Amino acid sequence: MNAIATWWQARCAGSAAFRLVDTNLRGIGQVMFQDNPLSGALFLAAIAWGAYSAGTPEVLYGGLVGVVAATLAALGLRVASVPLRSGLYGFNGFLLGLALATFITPGPLLWVYVVLGAAVSVVVMAATVRVAASWDMPALTFPFVIVTWMLLLATYAFGGLSGDALPTASVVAPFEPVVSPPWDIGTFFGAVMLSISQVFLKASVIASLLFLAGLAVNSPAASVAALAGASLAVITAHLLGAESDLITGGLLGFSPVLTAVALGTVFNRPSVRVAVYAGLATVFTVVAQAALNVALTPLAVPALTMPFVLVTWMFLLPQMALKDSDSANA
Amino acid sequence: MNAIATWWQARCAGSAAFRLVDTNLRGIGQVMFQDNPLSGALFLAAIAWGAYSAGTPEVLYGGLVGVVAATLAALGLRVASVPLRSGLYGFNGFLLGLALATFITPGPLLWVYVVLGAAVSVVVMAATVRVAASWDMPALTFPFVIVTWMLLLATYAFGGLSGDALPTASVVAPFEPVVSPPWDIGTFFGAVMLSISQVFLKASVIASLLFLAGLAVNSPAASVAALAGASLAVITAHLLGAESDLITGGLLGFSPVLTAVALGTVFNRPSVRVAVYAGLATVFTVVAQAALNVALTPLAVPALTMPFVLVTWMFLLPQMALKDSDSANA
Amino acid sequence: MNAIATWWQARCAGSAAFRLVDTNLRGIGQVMFQDNPLSGALFLAAIAWGAYSAGTPEVLYGGLVGVVAATLAALGLRVASVPLRSGLYGFNGFLLGLALATFITPGPLLWVYVVLGAAVSVVVMAATVRVAASWDMPALTFPFVIVTWMLLLATYAFGGLSGDALPTASVVAPFEPVVSPPWDIGTFFGAVMLSISQVFLKASVIASLLFLAGLAVNSPAASVAALAGASLAVITAHLLGAESDLITGGLLGFSPVLTAVALGTVFNRPSVRVAVYAGLATVFTVVAQAALNVALTPLAVPALTMPFVLVTWMFLLPQMALKDSDSANA
Repeated sequence: MNAIATWWQARCAGSAAFRLVDTNLRGIGQVMFQDNPLSGALFLAAIAWGAYSAGTPEVLYGGLVGVVAATLAALGLRVASVPLRSGLYGFNGFLLGLALATFITPGPLLWVYVVLGAAVSVVVMAATVRVAASWDMPALTFPFVIVTWMLLLATYAFGGLSGDALPTASVVAPFEPVVSPPWDIGTFFGAVMLSISQVFLKASVIASLLFLAGLAVNSPAASVAALAGASLAVITAHLLGAESDLITGGLLGFSPVLTAVALGTVFNRPSVRVAVYAGLATVFTVVAQAALNVALTPLAVPALTMPFVLVTWMFLLPQMALKDSDSANA
Repeated sequence: MNAIATWWQARCAGSAAFRLVDTNLRGIGQVMFQDNPLSGALFLAAIAWGAYSAGTPEVLYGGLVGVVAATLAALGLRVASVPLRSGLYGFNGFLLGLALATFITPGPLLWVYVVLGAAVSVVVMAATVRVAASWDMPALTFPFVIVTWMLLLATYAFGGLSGDALPTASVVAPFEPVVSPPWDIGTFFGAVMLSISQVFLKASVIASLLFLAGLAVNSPAASVAALAGASLAVITAHLLGAESDLITGGLLGFSPVLTAVALGTVFNRPSVRVAVYAGLATVFTVVAQAALNVALTPLAVPALTMPFVLVTWMFLLPQMALKDSDSANA
Repeated sequence: MNAIATWWQARCAGSAAFRLVDTNLRGIGQVMFQDNPLSGALFLAAIAWGAYSAGTPEVLYGGLVGVVAATLAALGLRVASVPLRSGLYGFNGFLLGLALATFITPGPLLWVYVVLGAAVSVVVMAATVRVAASWDMPALTFPFVIVTWMLLLATYAFGGLSGDALPTASVVAPFEPVVSPPWDIGTFFGAVMLSISQVFLKASVIASLLFLAGLAVNSPAASVAALAGASLAVITAHLLGAESDLITGGLLGFSPVLTAVALGTVFNRPSVRVAVYAGLATVFTVVAQAALNVALTPLAVPALTMPFVLVTWMFLLPQMALKDSDSANA
């Protein structure tokens, strides 16, 4: 693995084209906080598999157009080069491309929308970085969510874009469960795996394994946190009586997976106290995901990863004393 | 009164158990900004009366579980000890417990929800304190509102929790008044009293008198401000033609009561200019309460005390020159 | 022109009454960022024409009561005198008065509402200025939008105020275009002109010419940016397939006009890079306007100029390197 990395770094040092590929792969890796081109390549392979096996190759193209357009827009806007090279200006465009191609029926204007949205995501990323820096907060996927929400909402006002895969609107109504077959260990395992692949809007166990591999090559702890977070989310949602089909489809677990990885491994050094804290946040992200799903019912757009963003900011802002060596009530 | 206070302080100095009780009573007192265990005890008596007389003792238990869970979570999270001992990490959990037990049908998951929500309210309090401190703003009841909204919205996605006492959703519709009996002085007095007791989600004149007593033992000015704010809110709502049943039930007055106490006595030194300024804010809080009630109609959750939070922040942020000695247009 | 300006300044220097008129005219000018009483006078003439020709003189009175009430409230609240004299505490009250008189059926409580809202707009302006200053951001029309939204939403709870001109609420529904006659150059020109006059909630070509004149007397670049922004917005909305009647009525163009003027001439020095950047923001403001129109459908209130506020903040916050002399990737 190190030999490949060394060879790749030498290629990037000598060629702007390799550097551009490297930047875009890191952008894909940054969706799960991994500043590593190999992670990005494995994530891309997962999405390619998920998109082709579902018969929706346009989702892969959407992601690729989104990340490249975002990176080129960032170059044109002359953003700071260190975060740019780390992929921090690409991941929002990548997710935006995946999401738009998932929810909107393909057509020429879809691609105009992806390029426009990717360019704006760079501006919103720079804006979010500046505001969030006031409290040492990361931007997370906030730019992706805000720009994608606006683009999706606007499809209801534009005849040229048809969001046929968007949910149907209604006012909020009391819960009426659909009868589902009883759970077994295979159902649980499938729900956990799809919770991981749904971070990239895909429902595929094989894609999920590739995502875990992409995490493991850069951060074994992150792959453990993803699995633990997904498991905790599935159990929580089940105990609270959430719709079984939502759980088994991974749709209540993808935001908690991101919360678990972020709070458990990226922004805190793993420890017992950190695991308990990240666990509380992961459980509450299930509630936040359900709450935003409900709150957006009249607007007919998906919650995307906003529950992760909100809960992770809430739990990072206090800068809690989580090191085992911190004294109590200092 | 001073003798009791001295005796109680001596007990607290010598016993961790007394200190824990003291902290929780102060937490209850802080719902109305009173860092005083006797205020908290009187507020608790008011809620006990209100809950039992309404045949809903679970609301009292909800509040108690909420405040104790929040205090213990704050200890476990090692928050700063001075605000912890003043009850500032308890009042959001107390209100959250009252609200969840009011709106959700009792059952085992309700208590899981109260404990989870109370713990998260501590994190959100610490997060809010950090952000709000950038402009010297208090957190107010923002953590209570945000966490409770999420938990209530999520009940519409969870079969295990039934929010039978929540409002019914609809899109916003033109006002259609219900015919109500004409007002007399007794109706006005009742509306004022219930506006005060609804701060704690209770509709009881006796509870309201106990709340006023709890304010008066720590701050006579606060009890005057509560009565004045409630009266101003009732008059404003009546002149604007609000639904009579909402006014007489105190449901348009509880946020204005908090605004009047906060701006008139807690964060400004009482004076004529301050009274006028707090009066303007109190009147606008009636508008904000009505606006949020309307805005939340499609989501079928109550506005809680968010109108108070928004208006009080709006009126504190400018740091207006409200001292009579301030020169004009300095 | 200079002779008139000199004469007027001499009058203002010698008379408090002239200064008060000057402050209010500057307040009207500040709706489009022009700190110039002649701009304000031309804008006022435009609104007078638009209001009388539409048979709704109360809209003119609403604006006048709003701006005067806001200025007097700002004097009473002793805000800083330099921004006060520049009209920065008046423009929100002016817009609020126009909007309330446009959407609410005239009656005694309408005028109470305008005065109350104008006074609160001053407080919210001071609050917004303080928070926005943390990132060197202008307040824009945020105070107008927030206060007007609350007052309009609250009409659905108050029998004394009837918002008969407000939209009808529904949940979000798929786009169903209305068949409209085909476009010609006259239709395009009309759409561009009404996009400008709708900044002040008016649909009149003559008013639009007066607005352009008001811009030109203080900043020829601003009048060019308004025309270019309106044209770009109309073309963008048409290409995306927006409802033809909305475009020709100027209802998708007024926020983009403000974005173009703000980013192209007020907060950046005009250049090719700035024009491209402001152009991207202008195009995205069309999306944001459509998105907010959709998002507010269940709440039955208009988006007002919030799309302009959000997009302009997003594009100002990054402090992008837009000078042609800025080095790439510094």
